[in-house]
Amino acid sequence: MNALRWHAARDLRLSQVQPRQPGPGEVLLQVAYCGICGSDLHEYADGPHSIPQHAAHPLSGCRAPLTLGHEFCGQVVALGPDVDPSLLGQRVAVEPEYRCGECQYCRMGQYNLCESMGFIGLMGDGGFAEQALVPAYMLHRLPERVSFKQAAVLEPAAVAYHALNQSSLMAGDSCVVFGLGPIGLLLILLARLRGVERIYAVDLDPERRRLALELGASAALDGRDPQLQEHLRQLSDGGLDTAFEAAGTQQTLSHALHCLRKGGEAVLVGLMGEVQVDAFHLVNNELRLLSSVGYRHVYPELIELLASGRLDLSRVVTRCLALEQAVEQGFEALLHDKSQIKVLVNPTPALAEA
Amino acid sequence: MNALRWHAARDLRLSQVQPRQPGPGEVLLQVAYCGICGSDLHEYADGPHSIPQHAAHPLSGCRAPLTLGHEFCGQVVALGPDVDPSLLGQRVAVEPEYRCGECQYCRMGQYNLCESMGFIGLMGDGGFAEQALVPAYMLHRLPERVSFKQAAVLEPAAVAYHALNQSSLMAGDSCVVFGLGPIGLLLILLARLRGVERIYAVDLDPERRRLALELGASAALDGRDPQLQEHLRQLSDGGLDTAFEAAGTQQTLSHALHCLRKGGEAVLVGLMGEVQVDAFHLVNNELRLLSSVGYRHVYPELIELLASGRLDLSRVVTRCLALEQAVEQGFEALLHDKSQIKVLVNPTPALAEA
Repeated sequence: MNALRWHAARDLRLSQVQPRQPGPGEVLLQVAYCGICGSDLHEYADGPHSIPQHAAHPLSGCRAPLTLGHEFCGQVVALGPDVDPSLLGQRVAVEPEYRCGECQYCRMGQYNLCESMGFIGLMGDGGFAEQALVPAYMLHRLPERVSFKQAAVLEPAAVAYHALNQSSLMAGDSCVVFGLGPIGLLLILLARLRGVERIYAVDLDPERRRLALELGASAALDGRDPQLQEHLRQLSDGGLDTAFEAAGTQQTLSHALHCLRKGGEAVLVGLMGEVQVDAFHLVNNELRLLSSVGYRHVYPELIELLASGRLDLSRVVTRCLALEQAVEQGFEALLHDKSQIKVLVNPTPALAEA
Repeated sequence: MNALRWHAARDLRLSQVQPRQPGPGEVLLQVAYCGICGSDLHEYADGPHSIPQHAAHPLSGCRAPLTLGHEFCGQVVALGPDVDPSLLGQRVAVEPEYRCGECQYCRMGQYNLCESMGFIGLMGDGGFAEQALVPAYMLHRLPERVSFKQAAVLEPAAVAYHALNQSSLMAGDSCVVFGLGPIGLLLILLARLRGVERIYAVDLDPERRRLALELGASAALDGRDPQLQEHLRQLSDGGLDTAFEAAGTQQTLSHALHCLRKGGEAVLVGLMGEVQVDAFHLVNNELRLLSSVGYRHVYPELIELLASGRLDLSRVVTRCLALEQAVEQGFEALLHDKSQIKVLVNPTPALAEA
């Protein structure tokens, strides 16, 4: 079968690989769609970052070269031993976090903090392939009404939803989202669904700001605005309840902390290194700097929202490609064209949707 | 009457002042005890920091020179208009936060975040005087069983209790306290009272570490320990639930963030300026950086704990002085002798307790 394998930065190869039989607790998935994630892009542009190169990941047993792709869904076509037989033939979404099931975090149900944390498609062979071997515990059955295209966006939606759950944002509150990539845009969509009506969106790109307004933002501001903090405070009667930092820069973090009301909170979703923080400002205004990594226990709720028709994740999908087109029209396009948001790859033409 | 007035850094003067009659909503208090706070020390050592010098504070109408002291209690000896007449003669503690009662924070009950936030004794004439004029809304009646000496420590205890309330610390959890000044030590005492049994204490001073053990810490570690983070993680089976930063340094903040379990939290209580934070570490471990300023709605509960005998705040009192001794044996001693924790000043000899 065909698979898109990461060998090194700027070296993604479409290769013929022989899939092995599913082992105990595994299923073989015929992949319908797999989305290109920001972390896939990072691995492509200047990786490896998370891809294990020298030692195999403890839970996947894999190291580079490996098949990229963790935002995927498809149809179960074969079962390994010890797997619920009713899964065969099912349409499923993959929740791609590995979990050991034994560490203190897994035992508390906080499997996104698992001591052996990793993602299939980054630390093990993933979804940019016609078929993928997936641990059965990662699977969520898809109701009839939920399309594969929607299901392929569940993973970034789960990241956004978990970030929302880390905040204390409620209907009637106000928030700002810095960075209008897929996570930022999905945060807007999901905050809106939760009844939040004052949602401000900040990005450098006009097309992304336009999309934010379409998805429910009350106003969209240019990140270059020299009075950005003042404007956000004016819009929100003195300061926002919650700021989501999904751009991952020192400047947006500073903006986030300075546009809050006293007692407000900033949630870090984007990844950064060492940053400067004005701790006096933090304490004097009793601010909370929260953070969010991955997700836990949100797939069932998101799938229900999709099935009910209240949530439409296809709104962030800007392009669908065949596996052969993925590098040029997917990875390269996302690196250079800010109007591309979520690009899906369809490795199995028979499972393509209109 | 005698009052200790701040004129400039290192210039605290014992002066004769004429108290004015209490205005509407005010009472005249005969001061029993007033504690010396870290912020008083800062004003003395290299102020002004919070003391208004040029413009009067909007709620107190005061600016320097003014009478220092906000940790105080005493007996109501005169009432202004519009004050509950039953207050006359009462023994009371002062909760020294001014509040406007009208801003969005006051209306939400978050009066510690009041837009005109300030403290009597820093932004207005306070308790290092025989008598003080105090807004009646600041008063809490003291039950018979609660001594004035205990009541004078309510203010720093309220700071510690509010910080504890910002955390999610529960019985069965583990915590570490960095910085064993009055706030750090009171945090230990109050966390213990809340059923927390694994409490680790960190300070440079051996005498303060000894006192922390006496007040309920499970272990006390030298802040200079080059393996401090590792030792704290070992003591707590891989990482602590909560770290309280009450030392106010870049180094203790870094320690605080690196001794936590995944999903743990650090609470900033000490004041700092710009600090470096490893945001990747924060996000990757889903840590929360919380902060705490002042207090709200905790005096009644603390007074009840004192009345029931379950809490003994006199354990942090290391010295009691007359007003005339306050500068030399109080302020100067606290600046140079780390074994001094809470020093109380008794401006009215007739209200002195054994």
